[in-house]
Amino acid sequence: MTMLTLAPEYIRAIAPYQPGKPVAELAREMGLDPATIVKLASNENPLGMGPKARAAVEKEIADLARYPDGNGFELKAKIAEKYQVASEQIVLGNGSNDVLELIAHAFLQAGDTAVYAEYAFAVYPLATQAMGATGICVKALDYGHDLDAMRAAILPSTKIVWIANPNNPTGTLARPGDLIEFLELCPSHVLVVLDEAYTEFLPAAKRSDSIAWLKRFPNLIVVRTFSKAFGLAGLRVGFALASPEIIDMLNRVRQAFNVNSLAQAAATAALDDEEFLQASVRVNNQGMQQITDAFRQLGISFIESAGNFVTFHCGDARMLNQFMLERGVIVRPLAGYGMPNSLRVSIGLPAENARFIEVLQQAMND
Amino acid sequence: MTMLTLAPEYIRAIAPYQPGKPVAELAREMGLDPATIVKLASNENPLGMGPKARAAVEKEIADLARYPDGNGFELKAKIAEKYQVASEQIVLGNGSNDVLELIAHAFLQAGDTAVYAEYAFAVYPLATQAMGATGICVKALDYGHDLDAMRAAILPSTKIVWIANPNNPTGTLARPGDLIEFLELCPSHVLVVLDEAYTEFLPAAKRSDSIAWLKRFPNLIVVRTFSKAFGLAGLRVGFALASPEIIDMLNRVRQAFNVNSLAQAAATAALDDEEFLQASVRVNNQGMQQITDAFRQLGISFIESAGNFVTFHCGDARMLNQFMLERGVIVRPLAGYGMPNSLRVSIGLPAENARFIEVLQQAMND
Repeated sequence: MTMLTLAPEYIRAIAPYQPGKPVAELAREMGLDPATIVKLASNENPLGMGPKARAAVEKEIADLARYPDGNGFELKAKIAEKYQVASEQIVLGNGSNDVLELIAHAFLQAGDTAVYAEYAFAVYPLATQAMGATGICVKALDYGHDLDAMRAAILPSTKIVWIANPNNPTGTLARPGDLIEFLELCPSHVLVVLDEAYTEFLPAAKRSDSIAWLKRFPNLIVVRTFSKAFGLAGLRVGFALASPEIIDMLNRVRQAFNVNSLAQAAATAALDDEEFLQASVRVNNQGMQQITDAFRQLGISFIESAGNFVTFHCGDARMLNQFMLERGVIVRPLAGYGMPNSLRVSIGLPAENARFIEVLQQAMND
Repeated sequence: MTMLTLAPEYIRAIAPYQPGKPVAELAREMGLDPATIVKLASNENPLGMGPKARAAVEKEIADLARYPDGNGFELKAKIAEKYQVASEQIVLGNGSNDVLELIAHAFLQAGDTAVYAEYAFAVYPLATQAMGATGICVKALDYGHDLDAMRAAILPSTKIVWIANPNNPTGTLARPGDLIEFLELCPSHVLVVLDEAYTEFLPAAKRSDSIAWLKRFPNLIVVRTFSKAFGLAGLRVGFALASPEIIDMLNRVRQAFNVNSLAQAAATAALDDEEFLQASVRVNNQGMQQITDAFRQLGISFIESAGNFVTFHCGDARMLNQFMLERGVIVRPLAGYGMPNSLRVSIGLPAENARFIEVLQQAMND
């Protein structure tokens, strides 16, 4: 008997999440100068972190031998003020990934089921399986969530429905009215997790007023992150908003010091930096135009995206991906999502987008 | 039905970990100037973080909008070099707390049991319960681990034995020979987690050569942290060393970006800062002398400690704790550990220790 047979079968069956390739790793593998590499693989903010967040980090460095505030007092106070919720309605996570796992851990066990959409964010099936629960994957509609079919897929054993809006990696967006209808018709014993990691990139007209919905739907959990528009992916911080009862359960499985001190300081400051957030959205809108214009000119089909990335179709994606890696451009293969003929490119700075387009053209002429 | 009844019974029964009171919280509660508060409650490094780690953090700040390296390449390479293990034998965690939870998550499920000692670190029962497994708490021997009794407590359902060495909060230390005997006699289907969070404070003669034991005992997991002697508690980083098979299982339940970029950079640099480590040990030895001398002079009994903290007995600890809080000194109550008549004080800088002793004397004269 080897050690690994000690782990439950559902743990042994997990295939870990495949993150985007880091710049340093590609540099090592290909012998490239890291400075020449363009990484458009992880939906990061190409502007970096905002000046207020950076100042907060620099100020906080003096005290890093102290444990973080395990209750996240300052950050929760700022979130409560900004989003008009009570502190008891907030749980903080080591990125929103941590928040998603807290939800799975607190509410799923063997015998339970959780519903998610085909092509939805990979952490939903992973977090479900890691608790020994069973995922119910509902076929996508035009690469997005088929909310009617997802509702129809709910079983008596279903504890959670995972919804990404916008969805990563497809960038599809559900309409607010459709989400409200879903919540109205969803059985009240099923938690609905609305993962809005990319919501800051949406124009106001398309954004769901999801936080206001919390009052009406005690089974709703809204998940947000500081890794995308706020530009703090390297620091790891996200949060969920829900009823105090749900938050209390999540806190029971939360590690006491799950959010590091610098992340707390930076996120608190970032919520006050409206100017940086607007600049990030502007750069994203312009870059989305730049890249989708190029796709149209090159006759490359893509999925209309509401996020800071866009998925395009390219025949043998593995080959194109390799071609790009060799030229120092990192994008994201989607074979793990069941899309072996597509790649996802994150929106970068104008020069990064241009380099991506240049290499894409080279590949097509090759 | 309220939302919380959706959670399994074992989740609802969790009483979350009670961290040491942060300085800012006490300042708010008591209306004190934070600068006058002495926090000796969380076994932190009073020297702060080392200069090499700090330089590494400052250098890394430029890139915080990028996700961390999910594989922790640089830090694992440095750990592998320093401790003479393969990279495949290392898993990184968001503090060693995260590592402990990864172990519980990968190997425990409902119906399993895990063995730990009375007065042992609070995360062992918490992590065990959070997986729906059952803890077997073995009565302490002189406040330390009774290794013979722990071995005798192992059931066919036992998957993990948790051992803290030195133990927090009692500071007790097991002898290397006794640990080897335990490992030799322990059934091979039981994982032995040797949590050595405080090992750097030990003189060489008392330190277990635990990493070398990994070759002999494929069921051994050694856990270390950067939160104590290395002074990086606020950044959150720890690691476990074990066989590649065990590490592979832990990686399946690990969040892809569980260790933030700054923590990785700082920990990598900290492993090269032998000078800072030695200064930390020196300050700790002197402070331990200063505080235990005072205990002896005041006729206060305490538990001989091998860590950077010491637990002392004081009758009604709640009253003494409150007395100290009102005077801006934060120590750690241990009622949650079943020690309502004891407090734990972390070793601080000479002036911090002196302030603690001064307030302690005041309390005794009060």
